[in-house]
Amino acid sequence: MAELVTIAVDVMGGDNAPAAALEGIERALAENPNIRVIACGLPEVVQPFAASHERCEAQPASEVIAMDEHPANAVRRKKDSSIVVGCRLVKEGRAQGFFSAGSTGACLSAATLVVGRIKGIKRPALGQILPGYGKPTLLLDVGANADCKPEYLVQFGLMGAVYMRQLMGVASPKVGLLNIGEEPEKGSEFALECHQQLAQHLSAFGGNAEGRDLLNGSFDVVVTDGFTGNVVLKTVEGASKTLFKYIKDVFMSSPKTKVGALLVKADLAEVKAKLSPDTYGGAPLLGVKGAVLVGHGSSGAEAIANGIAKAAETVQADVAGVIAATLGEEDAR
Amino acid sequence: MAELVTIAVDVMGGDNAPAAALEGIERALAENPNIRVIACGLPEVVQPFAASHERCEAQPASEVIAMDEHPANAVRRKKDSSIVVGCRLVKEGRAQGFFSAGSTGACLSAATLVVGRIKGIKRPALGQILPGYGKPTLLLDVGANADCKPEYLVQFGLMGAVYMRQLMGVASPKVGLLNIGEEPEKGSEFALECHQQLAQHLSAFGGNAEGRDLLNGSFDVVVTDGFTGNVVLKTVEGASKTLFKYIKDVFMSSPKTKVGALLVKADLAEVKAKLSPDTYGGAPLLGVKGAVLVGHGSSGAEAIANGIAKAAETVQADVAGVIAATLGEEDAR
Repeated sequence: MAELVTIAVDVMGGDNAPAAALEGIERALAENPNIRVIACGLPEVVQPFAASHERCEAQPASEVIAMDEHPANAVRRKKDSSIVVGCRLVKEGRAQGFFSAGSTGACLSAATLVVGRIKGIKRPALGQILPGYGKPTLLLDVGANADCKPEYLVQFGLMGAVYMRQLMGVASPKVGLLNIGEEPEKGSEFALECHQQLAQHLSAFGGNAEGRDLLNGSFDVVVTDGFTGNVVLKTVEGASKTLFKYIKDVFMSSPKTKVGALLVKADLAEVKAKLSPDTYGGAPLLGVKGAVLVGHGSSGAEAIANGIAKAAETVQADVAGVIAATLGEEDAR
Repeated sequence: MAELVTIAVDVMGGDNAPAAALEGIERALAENPNIRVIACGLPEVVQPFAASHERCEAQPASEVIAMDEHPANAVRRKKDSSIVVGCRLVKEGRAQGFFSAGSTGACLSAATLVVGRIKGIKRPALGQILPGYGKPTLLLDVGANADCKPEYLVQFGLMGAVYMRQLMGVASPKVGLLNIGEEPEKGSEFALECHQQLAQHLSAFGGNAEGRDLLNGSFDVVVTDGFTGNVVLKTVEGASKTLFKYIKDVFMSSPKTKVGALLVKADLAEVKAKLSPDTYGGAPLLGVKGAVLVGHGSSGAEAIANGIAKAAETVQADVAGVIAATLGEEDAR
């Protein structure tokens, strides 16, 4: 049997907390016999839950960081919040990974401050798997660093390639730079400088990617600054939502289309699920010493279960260790 | 009867030139009795066409700018190209508007160099109408200026608001700044500075817009730098293409879904058309002295006919004149 992996889970984070988190933990434990969970949250919530579940321990945390609090301030002030407590478990080695559907900003802050960066990593980056046609693409940074330097993007590319290799089974990941044209001489001043540095320092670099390449499977990893990445991610989510609204309108427009809709509805729902970020179990924060994943605030039990399982996989694949090792190799090139 | 509006049309631009352009002109003339066209292109193409069409004049141009040429260099070198010649007609007052489905970069260069900027406008911007749910949103800049200063975005907002008011009938357009959070204190350093300047100098400013707001009708105009705008535009196009591919797969997956598909296909095709940028007849270049519109390279005859009609509407609504007047007013606030 595989070794037990311990994941700390923030039970208080997300729009549907704590019910969705508790149900998510229950599912993750049932589906993955090699996972152990430390449920972090208000004692009256986590203690009875842990008492009635195997491979589950309670870690009381008396505070909760709300979605609209200033992330860095909240992390500094609320040292007994479920997010900070969860990260501390990773720091102390009592857990190897952490999952939260709470404030993304607070998770980033806590992971960086408490868990700590991998030696040599300038900035951790938040990644998001996009469900491209044919194969998925990891986009990063999707929001950890609104302002970036070109050298950060080189490390984002390295970390993204490690993630796709270790976790998604891509033997030789191709890394693209999000830009406004295929040609190396296209782009903003920042993009031009990034292109040059990526070409020089990242062996997996495969040239510029355009917006349309994010969902067509042309690249395994696409790097960009956290501002552009976040805007693009929310654009994809919004576009997909708008399209399904239009489709729903079409389905309801006449008796004929209503019949047609009945026949394709179940299969279309599968497409919708496939396109949902929930399927991929949260966004990995790459560059910290441990497996930290952040779920959508709207995560339901299934998304949380997937996130916990993905955190365990990230531990087993030793993503953080391989990033540290690869960083050393590329530096030595 | 309305006054005749003369639009210069680049017959040599686009993937389907010159056939699509000629057919597009033919349609535009047939559908709009108040439009006159000056067809710019190789004499052997435009002269016989003009001879056989009413309200159509030929303007020979001996050169063609290819899609992959360096825009500014090509415009400087090929002074007798259809794009430069068409812009010159606007400059000389022989035409009031110009439409091309050719190289966007070359059109931007030629329009700026030959037609010229409206007095006081720092940088012209390329706009694109996005087909939002409920109502459309004008996004700009989508690629004219990869690097921007915050004060450019204030002018983009002003120009966008004029366009939506004059051409799309929006009484009080609401302008948003594309950013990574709703709160004024969110964003990159550049976005923060833009937010401050927009709040100070643009009466139509309505706060930050996120990626998901681009297609949900929350804002009439969304401003951003040309790098982010171009990436986002191509992301929307790519997302919509990928989604329809998935839907097609669903339709073909079983006998049951094939029957269902037959019943909804026609109506879905309408959605697809609605979401296509072609419907809106090209991207307006705002800030130059005249109505300049650039169509997608893949434009077919219908898209080109729509583009010519939209150029004529832009002339009739005096978008450039109203921009110049409004610029004076806002400066005086």
